[in-house]
Amino acid sequence: MEEIGQPLKKESVPIITVDVVVLTLDQGQLQVLLQRRPYAPFVGVWALPGGFVHMDEDQDTLAAIQRVLRDKTGASGLYVEQLATYSGGNRDPRGWSVSVAYMAILPKADLHIAQSPDIALVDTANLPDLAFDHAAILKDGLARLRGKGAYSTLPAMLLPKEFTLSELQAAYEVALGEKLDTSVFRRKVADFEFLEKTGENRSGTSKRPARLYRLKETMQTFERTLGRSF
Amino acid sequence: MEEIGQPLKKESVPIITVDVVVLTLDQGQLQVLLQRRPYAPFVGVWALPGGFVHMDEDQDTLAAIQRVLRDKTGASGLYVEQLATYSGGNRDPRGWSVSVAYMAILPKADLHIAQSPDIALVDTANLPDLAFDHAAILKDGLARLRGKGAYSTLPAMLLPKEFTLSELQAAYEVALGEKLDTSVFRRKVADFEFLEKTGENRSGTSKRPARLYRLKETMQTFERTLGRSF
Repeated sequence: MEEIGQPLKKESVPIITVDVVVLTLDQGQLQVLLQRRPYAPFVGVWALPGGFVHMDEDQDTLAAIQRVLRDKTGASGLYVEQLATYSGGNRDPRGWSVSVAYMAILPKADLHIAQSPDIALVDTANLPDLAFDHAAILKDGLARLRGKGAYSTLPAMLLPKEFTLSELQAAYEVALGEKLDTSVFRRKVADFEFLEKTGENRSGTSKRPARLYRLKETMQTFERTLGRSF
Repeated sequence: MEEIGQPLKKESVPIITVDVVVLTLDQGQLQVLLQRRPYAPFVGVWALPGGFVHMDEDQDTLAAIQRVLRDKTGASGLYVEQLATYSGGNRDPRGWSVSVAYMAILPKADLHIAQSPDIALVDTANLPDLAFDHAAILKDGLARLRGKGAYSTLPAMLLPKEFTLSELQAAYEVALGEKLDTSVFRRKVADFEFLEKTGENRSGTSKRPARLYRLKETMQTFERTLGRSF
């Protein structure tokens, strides 16, 4: 009896998507890659880059997000980390959906974005409204960067491979959202021994040349933690 | 032309499941909750507790795993944290699947497991073969506990609400997989100010009574980090 009169169910096949929070640094600003949605739902609204999983083509959701990134940024083999999975019957008007969200942190020079008014790097301090629950996903991504940034080399991934200590400090400050004391910062960098000198200097500025550093090979992953916090 | 002769595709509706790594401490051993699978695939093989998402019933995957935990452990409202999502065409013989995996860390007294030969707490140092990719999921869960344990109150969640400093140190040692120096441990516990005295002592042992502590209210979440490592 109770079955009669139930509202028509939405599509009973779940929707499986992937989305990605791509963060980079430009002129001292933490920026996120957004695209304007070309179709419904949320047509014309900015969103994180993403798409459906292609079950006949993608080995797993990691392969799916690599495909999406390749299509939208020209970058292949980008290092991404799983952020979290967002799910439920209310986040997408098309039906019960699961989005596996990833995070990519990279220097701006590694992004080759199509010339289009519908894809852009946007200052994370000045965001438009976002489609679906993408504002929450982005917020979680920024919290991850801030949380892990304090005890890992994550902020260094915002920079090109070679950087000065001033540039590294600026990356940590943007990631953590706070100013750091230069002498404390430099002592901790020395303590943790995660950098090596390239042997080159950055010249061409008005100041005296600054030594260039890079992450040691063994430190070039997200999960490599420093054991203590900045 | 290329369409002809393609092998028959597996079911093209994705399978959405949830699984959970339930960790607890018993007599100095880190233990995980396992169940023997009652049906194919992997019938009779041990696996992490889990099940299908019920799209008509579960608001999201968190609600789904809470339902699974309630059914299998008698515990409702357990605090769980998302671990990671595992996906792909090869991890489940029934088709392309997504499993959103969670983690629960709790004192043994909070688990009310059915009396059954098919559900058990198993020493993580002495595991049977597990179904699907559950060995990899469990490995990731143990790594999370080890990694976060070093700079968070996570290991304290293995204990009852009130504990002695010796019991807390034992929980950290099991979580981190290494012995800790007692004087260093106690100094750091004092530095981080995440405990409060209950005002009671543990008596009844042959030693002199030991003071009982509990986590401060504000520290009773997974994500609450201590800022520095043990």
